[in-house]
Amino acid sequence: MLEALKEKVYRANMELPEFGLVVYTWGNVSAIDRESGLVAIKPSGVDYATMKPEDMVIVDLEGKVVEGKLRPSSDTPTHLELYKAFSGVGGIVHTHSSWATSWAQAGRGIPCYGTTHADYFYGEIPCARVLTKEEVESAYEKHTGTVIIEAFEGRDPMATPGALCTSHGPFTWGKDAAEAVHNAVVLEEVAKMATRTEMLNPKIGPAIQYVQDKHYFRKHGANAYYGQK
Amino acid sequence: MLEALKEKVYRANMELPEFGLVVYTWGNVSAIDRESGLVAIKPSGVDYATMKPEDMVIVDLEGKVVEGKLRPSSDTPTHLELYKAFSGVGGIVHTHSSWATSWAQAGRGIPCYGTTHADYFYGEIPCARVLTKEEVESAYEKHTGTVIIEAFEGRDPMATPGALCTSHGPFTWGKDAAEAVHNAVVLEEVAKMATRTEMLNPKIGPAIQYVQDKHYFRKHGANAYYGQK
Amino acid sequence: MLEALKEKVYRANMELPEFGLVVYTWGNVSAIDRESGLVAIKPSGVDYATMKPEDMVIVDLEGKVVEGKLRPSSDTPTHLELYKAFSGVGGIVHTHSSWATSWAQAGRGIPCYGTTHADYFYGEIPCARVLTKEEVESAYEKHTGTVIIEAFEGRDPMATPGALCTSHGPFTWGKDAAEAVHNAVVLEEVAKMATRTEMLNPKIGPAIQYVQDKHYFRKHGANAYYGQK
Amino acid sequence: MLEALKEKVYRANMELPEFGLVVYTWGNVSAIDRESGLVAIKPSGVDYATMKPEDMVIVDLEGKVVEGKLRPSSDTPTHLELYKAFSGVGGIVHTHSSWATSWAQAGRGIPCYGTTHADYFYGEIPCARVLTKEEVESAYEKHTGTVIIEAFEGRDPMATPGALCTSHGPFTWGKDAAEAVHNAVVLEEVAKMATRTEMLNPKIGPAIQYVQDKHYFRKHGANAYYGQK
Repeated sequence: MLEALKEKVYRANMELPEFGLVVYTWGNVSAIDRESGLVAIKPSGVDYATMKPEDMVIVDLEGKVVEGKLRPSSDTPTHLELYKAFSGVGGIVHTHSSWATSWAQAGRGIPCYGTTHADYFYGEIPCARVLTKEEVESAYEKHTGTVIIEAFEGRDPMATPGALCTSHGPFTWGKDAAEAVHNAVVLEEVAKMATRTEMLNPKIGPAIQYVQDKHYFRKHGANAYYGQK
Repeated sequence: MLEALKEKVYRANMELPEFGLVVYTWGNVSAIDRESGLVAIKPSGVDYATMKPEDMVIVDLEGKVVEGKLRPSSDTPTHLELYKAFSGVGGIVHTHSSWATSWAQAGRGIPCYGTTHADYFYGEIPCARVLTKEEVESAYEKHTGTVIIEAFEGRDPMATPGALCTSHGPFTWGKDAAEAVHNAVVLEEVAKMATRTEMLNPKIGPAIQYVQDKHYFRKHGANAYYGQK
Repeated sequence: MLEALKEKVYRANMELPEFGLVVYTWGNVSAIDRESGLVAIKPSGVDYATMKPEDMVIVDLEGKVVEGKLRPSSDTPTHLELYKAFSGVGGIVHTHSSWATSWAQAGRGIPCYGTTHADYFYGEIPCARVLTKEEVESAYEKHTGTVIIEAFEGRDPMATPGALCTSHGPFTWGKDAAEAVHNAVVLEEVAKMATRTEMLNPKIGPAIQYVQDKHYFRKHGANAYYGQK
Repeated sequence: MLEALKEKVYRANMELPEFGLVVYTWGNVSAIDRESGLVAIKPSGVDYATMKPEDMVIVDLEGKVVEGKLRPSSDTPTHLELYKAFSGVGGIVHTHSSWATSWAQAGRGIPCYGTTHADYFYGEIPCARVLTKEEVESAYEKHTGTVIIEAFEGRDPMATPGALCTSHGPFTWGKDAAEAVHNAVVLEEVAKMATRTEMLNPKIGPAIQYVQDKHYFRKHGANAYYGQK
């Protein structure tokens, strides 16, 4: 079932250790087949070195396992909330990559300090609020999705394809699993440079808005002119 | 004698340079056979590139060499103290890994700033007190174990499987040598992210307790639901 | 056309990921054939893994594509401005390398803190001023070149072969593409060490002028004595 | 002439890029044959990838080339001063390794913050004073050696086998070229951890003296018990 999607999700998961975003079995990638409403996701706590495409678990949007011998990632309910709320999203990544996680642990969104950030993420990458005790103790992983969605009220999740969860780490997304991983790699790079930017100039503010606009819109939307046709 | 244990201890030692936790001959891993009370440990100052499983030294809990042509690690008495005091421990690792050692040199325990920490270490990773002049000048390595044990008074060493020694470096442990190395890798990652968390938000406090509890107990104990059955 | 130049530009571009200066398709190198006034430059947004020498695009100094099936780098107008203004320049590099970009995002030039810097860059590596809204909205990439040129008024661009663009990243140059890449690598190293120098001594000033002079002139100019004859 | 020494010096030089201590042609290692008073040293500005053992240059203690087709390292006079002043030294290394150079650029010696430092360097690693204008303009490289020697007045250079030169970088030494490289690797690691130690605790002071003594003397001198017999 959905063999092509499982293969893509497998490959996207394998990119996480290749890009140095995860240690051991940390991190997970999923992708959705919007037609059937089914999601392929990494199994929980399985070693990247031995994982195979057929180990990907297929779940429906309520989290019921439709195919697969292994348990899906414990973060599955977070992925599902995001797929339900963000209709443009085709793939989602969660990691504990070290620079982005440090911002999450600091409880801070990442300001847009330059064009590297603006090329991929429009405006600040938000840090979702702390969950309440009730949200943590009942359906914790689902509520992790809820607070991310809350952080995007009035914002386009496709223009800023990532968020941080306080005391936890980053989630990124994209039109498919590969783009979601691409955004996870860029987020980590942006988080690293933003940290060093503040070290070098503690009073620095975000890049001027017209520079942010210029860079974002030269790569995205109707007037984009970056890359090949 | 205890060939299987020596093989495991050898392999665990070899993981230290692979994970970038040691330079040259620094670091050592041991494991205990609880039935016989014998410990297999890395020889002192031997190059990882030429070390073999049969080079592991077998010592009893008083530090007497029972088998082996080489001298055991100079840190052997520290390992033995921990085995004697912490009955659940099956393997121990000592490194000078750079982030954890920086916390040790700063004389500070590592606060639990997020879920990466909470997934493996319950609460702050303690920094043992400075040894007295007498403790250093007589049986220094043994007293290094004593002050770690002191730091765990009233705490479960299996729930927080690691500690820092002031001006020195980290020790971690686990149910066996492999798990002790796993915890050494995670400790280094956690120490790195905690440093950056403080850079980004010098006023940050530990993650809220109910988030720490949630993460620790979703991976440990009767109600754990992370990973495969 | 200009096959030898395209080959050199290709090779120089391939060095960017080898030296860890770029992620994905970021970064670009060009070189000029001064006789014909034609420039070979990396195509826009093409993967380093699949790029070939024949993919290099040939443009004239007005930016017209003279040969090539792909679009040239979107940063081409910046390169062209620099070739027009700096007659000694034979090759140019643009990256978002992380340490140099952090200085650019902080809006600061890099002071000459030591001999590593002085061996390659005479004096502070300047940070060009922020572009005006008009400059960004009309011919942005060309104006990126204009402000770099402005920063070199009264300075020799060959003695300080690089600059930072505020909120953006570094450009370096040299007598050819290979030297421009060499200078990009050194700039990144110098930017990293300058950051740490300030962490260790926030009150530090530039290295004493006669030390800067000594190092620069032992490698450059008539009295140079570094390297082989 | 002195083929075995040239081979050792060659191998020691090749370790510099392997351990990540140098970029391009930076850095140099030499060793002395005390019987003949001749020194083998890396040629100036030669690529590590193509360098061969026979490229090592033989000079006498006055700097006269005795054998070799290439120019010796431009830092040769510094090495020679150290060999003349420190009779126990058999090999010398100079690098611009990034953490140690950051301390040099900050104009600070490295305090002994822990046992990793104490295992190899007894007490603070000194930072030599700034050279005067006269010292820089006449026989600069020789005077670079002079100020290092000055920094060791009343100290044993074999107990603290390294120093920093203000605004420049580190020199280390040992009984032979291999040990000098070993000490260069350790110095870089110690410099890195000392930086982070200060980030984590800006008020930290050096490790207590009796801990420094314990670690230094368990590896050095008559009562050493680290390593194999």
